[in-house]
Amino acid sequence: MTRNFTSDNVTPACAAVMAAVNAANEGSTASYGADAITARLQARVAELFETAVSVYPVATGTAANALALAQICPPYGGIYCHEAAHIVTDECGAPGFFAGGASVLGLPAADGKITAAQLEAAIGQANSMGVHHVKPAALSLTQATEWGTVYSCDELAELAAVAERHALPVHMDGARFANALEFLGCSPAEATWKSGIDVLSLGATKNGALAAEAVVFFDPSLAANFERRRKQSGHLWSKLRFLSAQLLAYLDSGLWLANAAQANAMAGALGLGLAAIPGARLLQSVDANEVFVALPEPVVVGLEAQGFGFYRWPAPDVVPPIGAGVSIRLVASYLTARADVDGLVAAAAQIASRS
Amino acid sequence: MTRNFTSDNVTPACAAVMAAVNAANEGSTASYGADAITARLQARVAELFETAVSVYPVATGTAANALALAQICPPYGGIYCHEAAHIVTDECGAPGFFAGGASVLGLPAADGKITAAQLEAAIGQANSMGVHHVKPAALSLTQATEWGTVYSCDELAELAAVAERHALPVHMDGARFANALEFLGCSPAEATWKSGIDVLSLGATKNGALAAEAVVFFDPSLAANFERRRKQSGHLWSKLRFLSAQLLAYLDSGLWLANAAQANAMAGALGLGLAAIPGARLLQSVDANEVFVALPEPVVVGLEAQGFGFYRWPAPDVVPPIGAGVSIRLVASYLTARADVDGLVAAAAQIASRS
Amino acid sequence: MTRNFTSDNVTPACAAVMAAVNAANEGSTASYGADAITARLQARVAELFETAVSVYPVATGTAANALALAQICPPYGGIYCHEAAHIVTDECGAPGFFAGGASVLGLPAADGKITAAQLEAAIGQANSMGVHHVKPAALSLTQATEWGTVYSCDELAELAAVAERHALPVHMDGARFANALEFLGCSPAEATWKSGIDVLSLGATKNGALAAEAVVFFDPSLAANFERRRKQSGHLWSKLRFLSAQLLAYLDSGLWLANAAQANAMAGALGLGLAAIPGARLLQSVDANEVFVALPEPVVVGLEAQGFGFYRWPAPDVVPPIGAGVSIRLVASYLTARADVDGLVAAAAQIASRS
Amino acid sequence: MTRNFTSDNVTPACAAVMAAVNAANEGSTASYGADAITARLQARVAELFETAVSVYPVATGTAANALALAQICPPYGGIYCHEAAHIVTDECGAPGFFAGGASVLGLPAADGKITAAQLEAAIGQANSMGVHHVKPAALSLTQATEWGTVYSCDELAELAAVAERHALPVHMDGARFANALEFLGCSPAEATWKSGIDVLSLGATKNGALAAEAVVFFDPSLAANFERRRKQSGHLWSKLRFLSAQLLAYLDSGLWLANAAQANAMAGALGLGLAAIPGARLLQSVDANEVFVALPEPVVVGLEAQGFGFYRWPAPDVVPPIGAGVSIRLVASYLTARADVDGLVAAAAQIASRS
Repeated sequence: MTRNFTSDNVTPACAAVMAAVNAANEGSTASYGADAITARLQARVAELFETAVSVYPVATGTAANALALAQICPPYGGIYCHEAAHIVTDECGAPGFFAGGASVLGLPAADGKITAAQLEAAIGQANSMGVHHVKPAALSLTQATEWGTVYSCDELAELAAVAERHALPVHMDGARFANALEFLGCSPAEATWKSGIDVLSLGATKNGALAAEAVVFFDPSLAANFERRRKQSGHLWSKLRFLSAQLLAYLDSGLWLANAAQANAMAGALGLGLAAIPGARLLQSVDANEVFVALPEPVVVGLEAQGFGFYRWPAPDVVPPIGAGVSIRLVASYLTARADVDGLVAAAAQIASRS
Repeated sequence: MTRNFTSDNVTPACAAVMAAVNAANEGSTASYGADAITARLQARVAELFETAVSVYPVATGTAANALALAQICPPYGGIYCHEAAHIVTDECGAPGFFAGGASVLGLPAADGKITAAQLEAAIGQANSMGVHHVKPAALSLTQATEWGTVYSCDELAELAAVAERHALPVHMDGARFANALEFLGCSPAEATWKSGIDVLSLGATKNGALAAEAVVFFDPSLAANFERRRKQSGHLWSKLRFLSAQLLAYLDSGLWLANAAQANAMAGALGLGLAAIPGARLLQSVDANEVFVALPEPVVVGLEAQGFGFYRWPAPDVVPPIGAGVSIRLVASYLTARADVDGLVAAAAQIASRS
Repeated sequence: MTRNFTSDNVTPACAAVMAAVNAANEGSTASYGADAITARLQARVAELFETAVSVYPVATGTAANALALAQICPPYGGIYCHEAAHIVTDECGAPGFFAGGASVLGLPAADGKITAAQLEAAIGQANSMGVHHVKPAALSLTQATEWGTVYSCDELAELAAVAERHALPVHMDGARFANALEFLGCSPAEATWKSGIDVLSLGATKNGALAAEAVVFFDPSLAANFERRRKQSGHLWSKLRFLSAQLLAYLDSGLWLANAAQANAMAGALGLGLAAIPGARLLQSVDANEVFVALPEPVVVGLEAQGFGFYRWPAPDVVPPIGAGVSIRLVASYLTARADVDGLVAAAAQIASRS
Repeated sequence: MTRNFTSDNVTPACAAVMAAVNAANEGSTASYGADAITARLQARVAELFETAVSVYPVATGTAANALALAQICPPYGGIYCHEAAHIVTDECGAPGFFAGGASVLGLPAADGKITAAQLEAAIGQANSMGVHHVKPAALSLTQATEWGTVYSCDELAELAAVAERHALPVHMDGARFANALEFLGCSPAEATWKSGIDVLSLGATKNGALAAEAVVFFDPSLAANFERRRKQSGHLWSKLRFLSAQLLAYLDSGLWLANAAQANAMAGALGLGLAAIPGARLLQSVDANEVFVALPEPVVVGLEAQGFGFYRWPAPDVVPPIGAGVSIRLVASYLTARADVDGLVAAAAQIASRS
């Protein structure tokens, strides 16, 4: 039983991914992506997304995001996103570095989801300043969002329509794309290019891989020379089969969705269980695999004392204020079991009853 | 009589600066700064600021700011400033470009002046995220601020103390430094290094030069290899005497302060005059040479119709809200005359009386 | 009489340019290039080059070159040029900085002129390495060259044809373009876009301006968003009229060609005079305004002792070797007079006769 | 039996490395390097190199090199290396990109080993040009070299002494460091910091890992903030244990040297065997695991026709010229067996005997 709810990246790789890596470790093969496994991956992603794609495996989500954004945003451009986006707060300035000085422009939204009206206003304001301001150049949406919520396809399409009107390509940071997809219940195509997404960072690491993400372009013309960017930034593996094998296993047999379903279900159960604690309040809808909840301080302190792992997480500006509670984040993963959830909820309830 | 209050950069150069440029245009001389005029400039700045300095003339304020910031902030660093700072909104991402991808982190403040407490909180939040967040690396303060206000020396010193505690060098964007200095009535030394400033963008273009600014390091050790940055970014002039001559004339005989005094006085008169219009409200203290005022819409429309030049300027979040008024910015310069001010105020009053 | 032959950038501005700057210093006007003088400059350049152009004034040649190259070369690209090109040896890495890490790839050629065959071979070799090598992305030709020679229009066209076959835009570093044009005796159009040049750094500083160059795009579609690059790198002047006025005066009334003719003629005379010194050998054809000559060491030492200014300049690999001589560079400018040339040649002859 | 001699990166991971990856795949653990395996790796490298070290695992050699160089070279700096260095020809401009526009300056040397005298001359020439030229900033030596040769410790020390005299930190590209070490027969310490190396790219991928290299700083003060660079460039893995586990297995029990010994021995046998073919000539000393040999064209064509894999590789400028032969590169790996070598040599001999 685990008490570690700090992140979904503390997990090992799942068995099927590990098996695929072992299976790929046979014989000499062409390097830098000219191998059969990588070719199968390309075909598999195209099939799953029901369109022609250009797929570029890399090892980290930061690399996937920053490379994708550098491809669509010039040095003098601005990238619109949520103010709590991973590209703003958790990538040490990677998009600016990869895109030669581009600016990341965060917009506020209490539930993690920016709106079409917000975007329109921000672009209009920037354009009014002409050459002095960075050029509105790209839109990056995180799905599932940093606040554990999920954009509906309609919400995505409205945002993408604004972007398209101003000629901004749209990137999706899908570090938890499978979690979002599982929540939406739609097809991968509907959740992406059919809703206006041009390029996707498709995450696997948090949901069962060792280290594997893919940059997926739905418009291959947008991918021109992307190979050079990957190479120049040190993200082209010589033994690329080992990345491709992880992704192929991840996408095969519905593994990605099965893993996401387990994580989402456990987060949901965690949210329900904690919401029932006296004085608790859920801060966000638990759409995917993250729970943001305010708990009475003694409960938080008590759980920490018992060795449960999670982060204290400043709440967004919400109404009403959370009062005396302490807001925390808990993350469920494909490995989280019902017993893990029950263990934490029971401990919280017991502490609360004693306070 | 001018009706142009759009900016202080619409002016020509003042007579003394122009005369100095003409005087410098004599004979062959060593290029790239190895000339006598540039040497005199170095000595003059040191004398005025009462300390050893390293002075680097450049032609634009964006160059001065971005070069100075690149010198003190690494690619993985963050630069704290006001959210309306010129480096955020008006330099097309120059600091990020010059500093190889560094992030500019704007903090809100209704009067344009961020506080020591705000800065401390922001650095603390960043540091709590460790390597994932950009490293707090530099502080940039605009003096006079983008809202026409001026930091007191005590305010500067408090901010600089926070910066120093966290090992952040402090930059001052002094595009309107003379205006601030004139308002403060203190010495150049007190307004800068004695208040904790490490490097100053000393502006002259807006206050009487053709095109001349200087990057002034008060700690010469901070300036190591700065010459290479200037050269690599195309900002080292072969005929540098023509930049140095402007700056020397600007600083000689108190010209910079005399010009600033005129601009400030005219802005003050403008502010007083407009504040007396029924329905008007000054949005900021008129410390330097900019006036931010909300006027009844018919007055604004009427002035525009009469050919007066100024920008409609969204007000900061102030209390109470400005209601039905339209907020605008007016800028006075060294060339603005009493008659110019009277002309605009009289026109506004007349329009208001008819409405 | 001057003894300074170190460079054409030690000169002051010529009278007509200075007069134009003074004339521009009248009244308030729109900033950032929205003024009448800048508009006239655009029209004048289009007229002179007999085609639609996009013209961007900047203050330095390094800025002009690096901005132009960043516009046509991506970070993962390579820029082919001569190994002694200014962009290789004298701009402190500016092209790499502006173009986000692009590589400058110098090719050898004893007379400063690379050949079409060389370029074809270099591109072929790079392409054979695929994604691992930088992508052949741009060609930069210096005209007049760093060795004082001038490409014929046919030579330019052959190089440009290779570049076009591989989809490389062609840049011309025309720091001494007027000198080359005067030598060629052809039209500005023939010397540039009719010979395959896409973008020109048009120099004026070395030939009579204070500080003024222009980036000229002959294919306006290549100039998309170039304004943002200029702004982001700090090279957009608020009082742009002062740059435009210099360039307009420079191009008006044939001033640029008259100045170049004087400089070229004086260099020619210098070359002839020095070649007659016993033991002297001209190292390059004196096409423009630079003389590269090997002189007996006592002559070089003697001239230095008499206060003549020039640089000792390592000769290119030439056949036959220059033996015991010392190779030097002498530069004539628009200000160089016959008496200056005669003075140096006479001094050299006298020293030689005593040795 | 393999016929693939194209590169040592076509191999799978060796059994011990793969076993370690599988063993690491247990349970939840702290992410981003705060795990026990990474801690053990740090200790192990320090022990092997007999000094305090800072070790940063990354997945590719390009990342290791470019990150290390960005740490020691500013944007306005130049990095000296051999003209055929991987960082010049095979990393798509990565050092320039990571170091914000820094220049890579290749020096020629027929055997892949630049000399102290060459380096001294190049630095002197650059310094003579002052601020106009890029600043000599770093030295990068490849060990084993791109031509399959190995610098002796004395040669390294002489080069490092020149670098130190000019304050240039010294980087070693050790993509094939184990092969060099095995050839030298000295200690890891002697081959690196005792010979003046400041930072090492320690390769494992080519010699038995899936994808694992380490940047090793021998002077921890040089590593300040290196973690941020790794993060900002997307090279910090969340599940870092999977990189560390590979490296730990690679270094444990002498596996790295055993693998290298096998590769070197097979290359040596290949060299000997091919040198005996009539008309063949070895182009370089076979110090490590690469063979550069000129063979009669019919032999090369015949081997290609039989499906042997290797690259045609232009010879360096050697004396005497290779005449009618075709120069090729063959690479042996830890997996190459005696039978593989014998197979190729026998085939070559047979083809030669028929020609």
